[in-house]
Amino acid sequence: MATSSEDLIVKALQEYTTCDVSDALIKLKFRNGGFLSGLTMWSPQRQDGPTKIVGPAYTVEYAPLSDPRPKYPTHYIDSVPAGAVVFVSCPPKIPNAVYGGLMSTRAKASGAVGSVIDGRFRDVQEQRDLNYPIFARDVGTAPPAELLKVVAVNVPVKLQTDEQDMTINPGDYLIGDLNGVVVLPKELGEKAILLMKKQVEADSKMAVEIAKGMSFSEASKKFRL
Amino acid sequence: MATSSEDLIVKALQEYTTCDVSDALIKLKFRNGGFLSGLTMWSPQRQDGPTKIVGPAYTVEYAPLSDPRPKYPTHYIDSVPAGAVVFVSCPPKIPNAVYGGLMSTRAKASGAVGSVIDGRFRDVQEQRDLNYPIFARDVGTAPPAELLKVVAVNVPVKLQTDEQDMTINPGDYLIGDLNGVVVLPKELGEKAILLMKKQVEADSKMAVEIAKGMSFSEASKKFRL
Amino acid sequence: MATSSEDLIVKALQEYTTCDVSDALIKLKFRNGGFLSGLTMWSPQRQDGPTKIVGPAYTVEYAPLSDPRPKYPTHYIDSVPAGAVVFVSCPPKIPNAVYGGLMSTRAKASGAVGSVIDGRFRDVQEQRDLNYPIFARDVGTAPPAELLKVVAVNVPVKLQTDEQDMTINPGDYLIGDLNGVVVLPKELGEKAILLMKKQVEADSKMAVEIAKGMSFSEASKKFRL
Repeated sequence: MATSSEDLIVKALQEYTTCDVSDALIKLKFRNGGFLSGLTMWSPQRQDGPTKIVGPAYTVEYAPLSDPRPKYPTHYIDSVPAGAVVFVSCPPKIPNAVYGGLMSTRAKASGAVGSVIDGRFRDVQEQRDLNYPIFARDVGTAPPAELLKVVAVNVPVKLQTDEQDMTINPGDYLIGDLNGVVVLPKELGEKAILLMKKQVEADSKMAVEIAKGMSFSEASKKFRL
Repeated sequence: MATSSEDLIVKALQEYTTCDVSDALIKLKFRNGGFLSGLTMWSPQRQDGPTKIVGPAYTVEYAPLSDPRPKYPTHYIDSVPAGAVVFVSCPPKIPNAVYGGLMSTRAKASGAVGSVIDGRFRDVQEQRDLNYPIFARDVGTAPPAELLKVVAVNVPVKLQTDEQDMTINPGDYLIGDLNGVVVLPKELGEKAILLMKKQVEADSKMAVEIAKGMSFSEASKKFRL
Repeated sequence: MATSSEDLIVKALQEYTTCDVSDALIKLKFRNGGFLSGLTMWSPQRQDGPTKIVGPAYTVEYAPLSDPRPKYPTHYIDSVPAGAVVFVSCPPKIPNAVYGGLMSTRAKASGAVGSVIDGRFRDVQEQRDLNYPIFARDVGTAPPAELLKVVAVNVPVKLQTDEQDMTINPGDYLIGDLNGVVVLPKELGEKAILLMKKQVEADSKMAVEIAKGMSFSEASKKFRL
């Protein structure tokens, strides 16, 4: 799946924050600027430090045992491509964790750059000892098999929150940092990158002048289009 | 708006925690001791360190684009008085952020002591680099203009949580620390201060005796009224 | 209440994480592996550091003032047994705190190992200065007496979340760490301990091989039963 244009976009995104990506997506009329609510940084630190992840999504769908689809025949964690961000989707209000330390050990060995769990994860200390980035809904302790099964891998999955209707497609760019997690649809990657450079330059100039005493309105008129 | 009695109350409040303020407000029959649920410290550290803010509220009301009121004609951040706490009110379940790093750069240049965002804020690292205190509901990445507009500044605003019915009036004292954010209505400022000194002395004596082995009941009878 | 078999189980549990306990409880068909959702570490650090607590539950039930039961006649905090974990149950959506610094001062003096508050607690800095472990739903600032009263001590209490139907009985083992809080029913203590040793050995071997490049599926087949 990895292509040279994908590589270039991932490289370019390293220069920007999730907020920069959202600013560009808002200009491209992509709703909520791609923000995925409820998913925050837990490892290597809890919402602290310089950690940032960027990569194409490798998606995993968990569903209740009552779901008519069969359990996925192999373990999804054994097929994560190098450079990918693992995205695990889990139904809401499940007390059990869907992701743990051994998953990250395997993902890291495969060259994944981080995991985003729309659900609970566990083994917090082990995740941090691995220095492996985890973004998730919340913590947990119990494994999921009494309630859930994996039903699909690398299919479009929905964010499981009642605040938003957002889809993560395999290969969409996932970007995570202190502010949360953003999805950048694959087809908008190049357009977004082109917008970001100008934005960030304008905002940097605004910050300098505002710190010196210029009003926000004046700085905005002067430096933003 | 700043008066010398206001200054004295702000100065006196520096000596006390949000819990001390709430204890006094409960005695004055002000419900929930003025606690504003859901608003926690994000900058300069996430619920850690000695940060505390105290100041009169400068309020800002965001509403959905469908709101009949027109957009406020100027940028609210250009009129924050020195010493104020900016309070930004945003409807619930909005994935977009209503406050960012450039707002804090401007507020800090104006001498504001901190910002309380009843909504999402963004640019977490920039906020921390500014060493500017932020209390908020949650993080975010996207700007708000696709969904919301500012409709009023320095008007009474409601806390946007389903747990409480609380109003923040312009000029009410806002106090924020590790425990959260408390509103002290302007007209109760002096009465509350008078109660706090006695409370804190009693509680300090109780702590000493309890640590030595006295029962809570005995210490309470001995030192509290 | 303390017995020598209880002491041995508490001692054995010191070797394991909350996740290890949940793994064993899932095998024993105890739902959600005993995980108690919504209760996370706040002191001595916010979800960081090596803090872990283990002990039999000493339970406290708060109810609305309208509850027909009378207020409990003495202060519950004066009767905490050495080695116990205090568990305070509070109805949902209460903005007021039900637990504060003086409670921990007293509990610590009695030899309690930590407190789990299914509700809001306050005096965050004081809790941390005491180096006393607190797990709770959230922070707060106001005392509870305008809304709530203690109605029972050392009775079975329900976890107050809409995600789960879980009961904590007096004497059940409570285990808390970075991943959250788990209840291990008293009668399952010995059986759970026997399962944990094997589990942890298998998982350690899996982690070593997976880090070297073995697939998760192969490692699981090789080391797990």
